[in-house]
Amino acid sequence: MSWVAQILTLYPQMFPGPLGHSLAGKALDDGLWAIETLDIRDFASDKHRSVDDTPAGGGPGMVLRPDILGAAIDAARLHAEPDWPLVFLSPRGRPFDQAMAREWAGCGGITMLCGRFEGVDQRVIDQRKLTEISLGDFILSGGEPAAIAMLDAVVRLLPGVMGKHQSAEDESFERGLLEYPHYTRPQIWEGHEIPAVLNSGHHGKIAEWRLKKAEDVTRLCRPDLWSTYERRHKT
Amino acid sequence: MSWVAQILTLYPQMFPGPLGHSLAGKALDDGLWAIETLDIRDFASDKHRSVDDTPAGGGPGMVLRPDILGAAIDAARLHAEPDWPLVFLSPRGRPFDQAMAREWAGCGGITMLCGRFEGVDQRVIDQRKLTEISLGDFILSGGEPAAIAMLDAVVRLLPGVMGKHQSAEDESFERGLLEYPHYTRPQIWEGHEIPAVLNSGHHGKIAEWRLKKAEDVTRLCRPDLWSTYERRHKT
Repeated sequence: MSWVAQILTLYPQMFPGPLGHSLAGKALDDGLWAIETLDIRDFASDKHRSVDDTPAGGGPGMVLRPDILGAAIDAARLHAEPDWPLVFLSPRGRPFDQAMAREWAGCGGITMLCGRFEGVDQRVIDQRKLTEISLGDFILSGGEPAAIAMLDAVVRLLPGVMGKHQSAEDESFERGLLEYPHYTRPQIWEGHEIPAVLNSGHHGKIAEWRLKKAEDVTRLCRPDLWSTYERRHKT
Repeated sequence: MSWVAQILTLYPQMFPGPLGHSLAGKALDDGLWAIETLDIRDFASDKHRSVDDTPAGGGPGMVLRPDILGAAIDAARLHAEPDWPLVFLSPRGRPFDQAMAREWAGCGGITMLCGRFEGVDQRVIDQRKLTEISLGDFILSGGEPAAIAMLDAVVRLLPGVMGKHQSAEDESFERGLLEYPHYTRPQIWEGHEIPAVLNSGHHGKIAEWRLKKAEDVTRLCRPDLWSTYERRHKT
């Protein structure tokens, strides 16, 4: 059975989009995962298919109605397993990270609600117990680009998607360090050589050099990751 | 003159993708911004159009070659203004945020290098002074989904893309708080009413309630943002 991404959106035509190419696209073609889009507008009850209304208390923009979103969510969850996460993509949510990607890949699927306009009625978040997840501290025009990025991160972790060799790369990141620098041919480019140690053939020294470089770049660029790593490894 | 996104990628067919719809798509149709994709493979020099090679020192995956990326970057920058940011999308970079989106929207464009495979040769990052920017602490199959999310955040800030009313929403986020809850019709849904204050018509009380709710949700969900906000506003 393939992993399923259920996406509730006003723009079903955005999917699969970039997920239809490259690694995720091949996995989609191979049936390793599937996308089910639900058009929120299909759950509107009037002839204009309206899904939003003005915010109570005034203010800019429009708010997605709880009755329509509630019906859309219920329709999606009829075809979901109870353990699939039910998430609402929102800058207010918990920031998405690699641990979450791995957790989601371990379920059979996910239901994602993509917001638009000013926001969604808070009652549907509360009543349907939506988990709010954020892609980062920035504002998108809607949840769709966030859903695409998150699904890309999840799909590459699904069994059979990556070769055995490729997956090693995660271990470096999951160890809590940024990646060490990479080099490849040509040996000299614009007068700059590949660091000699990498051509030494001495595996122990290469591993030592790479760990040192990964620690250096993490300490310099991400003191937050560095202090966590230091607490775990250096005491 | 429209804002230009130059994208160096092995998958030009991923663009505009979701950026061809909704707010960003309309702005693209209206000529408020433009996408120029450069296929990295066009800069390969052999008949197999190969762009990568095995990592010096061994290890999994393939590394994008510095000579080919250097040529691709140079070709892009010939058509870029010197003040356009030149960024490499990488989990090692500085995390993208709303301030960066606003800064980028204030330039005339940007050049974005999307990586694939294990990584890119460090010499091209150093010699071309690429700024490494990360979408977040997770691993994507390539830089493309990150480019799409970042461009979505930037494009909505370009002049003429959003209505005057919509842009007010940013101010709440940029004040350093998460958003207050929204409500709209129906007045009662599944037995739950819209909070009475929002129907009071008392603008001062509504603003006070919303600020309180925004503070509550920020303190609860994002202690990191809260401590910054508290330092600025509560002393």
